[in-house]
Amino acid sequence: MADSVKVALLGCGTVGGEVARLLHEQADELAARAGAPVELAGIAVRRPDKHPELPRHLLTSDAEALVNSDVDVVVELIGGIDPVRKWLLSALHQGKSVVTANKALLAEYSAELSEAADASGADLYFEAAVAGAIPLLRPLRESLAGDRITRVLGIVNGTTNYILSAMDETGSGYAETLDEASRLGYAEADPTADVDGYDAASKAAILASLAFHTRVTAHDVHREGIGAIGAADIDAAKALGRTVKLLAICERVLDAEGGESVSARVYPAMIPRSHQLAGVNGAFNAVYVEADAAGELMFFGHGAGGSPTASAVLGDLVAVARNRVLGGRGPRESAHAALPVRPMGMTPTRYHISLDVADKPGVLAQVALVFAEHDVSIAAVRQRDADSTASLVVVTHLAPDAALQSTVDDLAKLEVVREVISVMRVEGDD
Amino acid sequence: MADSVKVALLGCGTVGGEVARLLHEQADELAARAGAPVELAGIAVRRPDKHPELPRHLLTSDAEALVNSDVDVVVELIGGIDPVRKWLLSALHQGKSVVTANKALLAEYSAELSEAADASGADLYFEAAVAGAIPLLRPLRESLAGDRITRVLGIVNGTTNYILSAMDETGSGYAETLDEASRLGYAEADPTADVDGYDAASKAAILASLAFHTRVTAHDVHREGIGAIGAADIDAAKALGRTVKLLAICERVLDAEGGESVSARVYPAMIPRSHQLAGVNGAFNAVYVEADAAGELMFFGHGAGGSPTASAVLGDLVAVARNRVLGGRGPRESAHAALPVRPMGMTPTRYHISLDVADKPGVLAQVALVFAEHDVSIAAVRQRDADSTASLVVVTHLAPDAALQSTVDDLAKLEVVREVISVMRVEGDD
Repeated sequence: MADSVKVALLGCGTVGGEVARLLHEQADELAARAGAPVELAGIAVRRPDKHPELPRHLLTSDAEALVNSDVDVVVELIGGIDPVRKWLLSALHQGKSVVTANKALLAEYSAELSEAADASGADLYFEAAVAGAIPLLRPLRESLAGDRITRVLGIVNGTTNYILSAMDETGSGYAETLDEASRLGYAEADPTADVDGYDAASKAAILASLAFHTRVTAHDVHREGIGAIGAADIDAAKALGRTVKLLAICERVLDAEGGESVSARVYPAMIPRSHQLAGVNGAFNAVYVEADAAGELMFFGHGAGGSPTASAVLGDLVAVARNRVLGGRGPRESAHAALPVRPMGMTPTRYHISLDVADKPGVLAQVALVFAEHDVSIAAVRQRDADSTASLVVVTHLAPDAALQSTVDDLAKLEVVREVISVMRVEGDD
Repeated sequence: MADSVKVALLGCGTVGGEVARLLHEQADELAARAGAPVELAGIAVRRPDKHPELPRHLLTSDAEALVNSDVDVVVELIGGIDPVRKWLLSALHQGKSVVTANKALLAEYSAELSEAADASGADLYFEAAVAGAIPLLRPLRESLAGDRITRVLGIVNGTTNYILSAMDETGSGYAETLDEASRLGYAEADPTADVDGYDAASKAAILASLAFHTRVTAHDVHREGIGAIGAADIDAAKALGRTVKLLAICERVLDAEGGESVSARVYPAMIPRSHQLAGVNGAFNAVYVEADAAGELMFFGHGAGGSPTASAVLGDLVAVARNRVLGGRGPRESAHAALPVRPMGMTPTRYHISLDVADKPGVLAQVALVFAEHDVSIAAVRQRDADSTASLVVVTHLAPDAALQSTVDDLAKLEVVREVISVMRVEGDD
């Protein structure tokens, strides 16, 4: 049995600082739970002189040397692909366990990292990479291991959820709400990764991989951001008793031939206000899961922030430390199902389309014909006249996304359609 | 590495039947996840002839012999203390891992079972014992292992939640709602264990033990059922923007001397309608957790039923099977904190008290004096006159429960108080 478990900490920003603090303050508790003391052996930061709050003898700017030193576990909180990828592969090849919150790396190189872990028998844990403090990956990997997950629907990006919640509440437009979010610290100086859905897409890839035992990378995830959402879209959703959320959606799709495939996608969508996820506002995250036996489940909590993310990192750290002390390994990558990933165009979705149309007889007939030509079935139509203009709102049944896109393209070409006011996907049962 | 993991199934009712079915139908999936085939070696039922749906050669009425046969894992779904306790202890002493949904047994004999498991190095898993399909114990035991949980607030009994939701919705009284619940199959023929809070108290004991690393048994849990709740209580809650839920409450309480103790209690309480748990209606379960670093978390899902409970059992079964195949052990009992359990009378709570008082000057002064005499501070008072009667609603700040009880006793003795209409505890911040 190991005398102690030696930990290398790579990166010491908001999350890393909390991890270092908790490792020190809760040393006794952690030792009791891990079965041996969990000891911070070194902290790699870019500029050691910028961290007067940390013990000088632990600090180094040489992350590679720290990884190669006599440590048992590497906790990586730097982020980004290079050079972190090389360091973590090296750690895993040496049989050192890795705990990371690096969603971008996992969403792209999960297979490579998992294979390195399997080759040496090391652990690879990454609870903090998705939905911060919310215990989500462990339930998916372990608690539901005997069940068949059919769907994961998540609000996994706090910045976009803050913006959409604020737009819903105040009626403001996108640009001014984003400005306000930046001012309040809810959006980064460069908000691209959040508002364009890259962050959520990485998380969707990780969730889909775990839920469906299939390797899904960020490149497999269809991604749309929230930049095109206007006050008109939010109003259109409200008029239907819905709200707009940026969703990470992972679904098991049954093919016409009876085979199964996986759909992973990120886009803003209207969900009913009665849906479990509709009330998740501000910077909170929540993930809704459907499984054959378990039915509906929901997990809710803080998706980001130093302390919440550190909580998830420490949970993983205790687990890998226990495995060091007692022997054994955590769950390895499970990619045995190897389902094909369904292209977005072939994925069944539903659209909400709001049109500004000429106020004359026969308009609905012309519009309905376009839907029929694309084999898209209409679930509901609402028509409203005002002066010489009229608005027409159509909600479809499920149809392949490409057919819905072509329908919208052809609607825009109709002479009676003055403007396509809003097009948005609809998720969640009414 | 084991060729296969042999499983003994004790009990084959609603949950057991689902477990047997899923073990058969998902054999390939389960083998892939566990690392070896998971094989049903035998099923112990009281009357084998009553189970024509199961393979005859697997059935036996001799559970003890099945436990002592060449099996690796015992899955117990019979329930109750005796004779199950003896069988499970025997299995654990032999180094056989145990998966059980038996909350009553765990709430009383967890220490004994854990010691047997530790002595032989076997696993003891029991996710299905609390909140059915909701992955809750694994997050508490593992995901939050590096955090400090301060509070667990749960709706963990579906029958009582169904009844209270229905009373809130329809305005009906307790007795008729219970009758209706029985008719619809939401309440058992003998609903005592549910409506008197015994079921929730067992679960509170299990949750408090895991959350606070302290042995808490059902006997340590203060327990009140919902039988005394009337339409007047529900109305009183509504008038304050609150709803009534039967809660299992586990709290870390700071003593005046700076020490810590644990409070575990089950009673109906008013919570704000804005609280995460307020919208959990019908037979659903949900558990709200507060931890120092993670902040607020919530877990929601089906708390009972054959399939949901089977999902939790299979998740555990895969975990213990993997440990058999790969070596290693799941988390063992963690009781290292060994905090004292705080008696209910010394536990800080808040009361909502509704009084029918004489409509004359000086009543409020007399009432307020009683509170002051017991050192109970008042948070809000609402007075309403109608003809010659008046009602007075008082909500207190936190005070020791015994002081609050004595206050109510003394209020009832006041001449100006005609009737104490409703007394209920208040939980959740406003």
